[in-house]
Amino acid sequence: MMKIDILSLFPEMFEGVLNTSILGKAAEKGAVSFKVTNFRDFTTNKHNKVDDYPFGGGAGMVLMPQPLFDAVDAVRKEENAKPRIILTSPQGKPFKQQDAEMLSKESSLIFICGHYEGFDERVPEHLVTDEYSIGDFVMTGGELAAMSMIDSIVRLLPGVLGNDTSAVTDSFSTGLLEHPHYTRPADFRGMKVPDILLSGNHEKIAEWRLRESLRRTYERRPDLLIDLELSEQEKKWLNQFECESEEKH
Amino acid sequence: MMKIDILSLFPEMFEGVLNTSILGKAAEKGAVSFKVTNFRDFTTNKHNKVDDYPFGGGAGMVLMPQPLFDAVDAVRKEENAKPRIILTSPQGKPFKQQDAEMLSKESSLIFICGHYEGFDERVPEHLVTDEYSIGDFVMTGGELAAMSMIDSIVRLLPGVLGNDTSAVTDSFSTGLLEHPHYTRPADFRGMKVPDILLSGNHEKIAEWRLRESLRRTYERRPDLLIDLELSEQEKKWLNQFECESEEKH
Repeated sequence: MMKIDILSLFPEMFEGVLNTSILGKAAEKGAVSFKVTNFRDFTTNKHNKVDDYPFGGGAGMVLMPQPLFDAVDAVRKEENAKPRIILTSPQGKPFKQQDAEMLSKESSLIFICGHYEGFDERVPEHLVTDEYSIGDFVMTGGELAAMSMIDSIVRLLPGVLGNDTSAVTDSFSTGLLEHPHYTRPADFRGMKVPDILLSGNHEKIAEWRLRESLRRTYERRPDLLIDLELSEQEKKWLNQFECESEEKH
Repeated sequence: MMKIDILSLFPEMFEGVLNTSILGKAAEKGAVSFKVTNFRDFTTNKHNKVDDYPFGGGAGMVLMPQPLFDAVDAVRKEENAKPRIILTSPQGKPFKQQDAEMLSKESSLIFICGHYEGFDERVPEHLVTDEYSIGDFVMTGGELAAMSMIDSIVRLLPGVLGNDTSAVTDSFSTGLLEHPHYTRPADFRGMKVPDILLSGNHEKIAEWRLRESLRRTYERRPDLLIDLELSEQEKKWLNQFECESEEKH
């Protein structure tokens, strides 16, 4: 069972998410256990202050190192293994599907969620093992980033997703964006499902899906194609997409 | 006041997040109002089914178009303005700080959160105005992506952040990652704050911060530098960082 500790100043943010949907079910099934700790409980000053003014001046408050180091020490004492300690911050490495896969193989993880202007730099420098960002945008705290990462990790644990094939055919697992999906009705308010999907020809359908998956990646995220090894057929399709888009312009 | 509607199959996931921290305070202050609607309430079939098998076969279930189109119609009837309709999906455009800034100027937004294998393609094609992804990783549903985007949008609304300068000096707002922060104590377990920050020389401190901001961006996210116009001083620093990193290798 994977053990996930979360250090946050807003434990109540996690309740709805950790008890619902796949994360709640994964905990019920015993695939993972969650514990949220308020690191304000580890302050040693009179007023339970967790932040202070930045050295050198400037706006905003900075989280002090002491409560975080002590909270991690306390959480780590309960662990057998040496857990990875993950900090969510806009300065981190962009979190990718490969990181979720790698972290899903660990037996225990500690997530540290920041708030206010940021952390004392001694936290990322000396306490954490991995600093991740979920995207180039700024949030009020690290809680939602931690929950997003936890969701993407936990769904990869054995037995969590009902259908074992689901996790394999996702976007990013193949390196391409997913092809379009259609379900009933075949005609909804005059908008129709592509004929090929109703044809029953499974070979043609598989080919259409691969081509649409490639087309979508070419049109929306060409950056994902750079590192891929493409088949001859896929290269031919890419050439077609290029010609089509030149004709449009 | 900004009005945000959220369509989701798991409304209880939002409770802890929308009532806590900055989002809860923003709603209390009247800067924003949230309404979460379960689109399962709009099904027209006997068993309140929202999903069905994909045309053409394959694993997983696909969200049907009917409940989503009807839920959006119902929500939109209560609006004066024509709201942007945002779909969170791994196939979307990567969500960036500029998107948060642009969306923070709207008067109403509708977020659609997916689950299961994906959506019927007629939803992104004909119903939504913007399809966004928060990162190249897969989650069990769109709820956490929607909450993350909402957090980054709402914190930009006037009066939401206590300190008006905070939103301006963040990472990404300047195009660079943020410089390191330090607070008390100056010596924690033998780990010391850089002398310059204790010097009281504000000009030197501002220079140090800009250089460290640039250094960090160079080391961790060189992709962010491509579109920036740099000053002569900044170009000189970049050259120094390059020489230093060559010496190390």
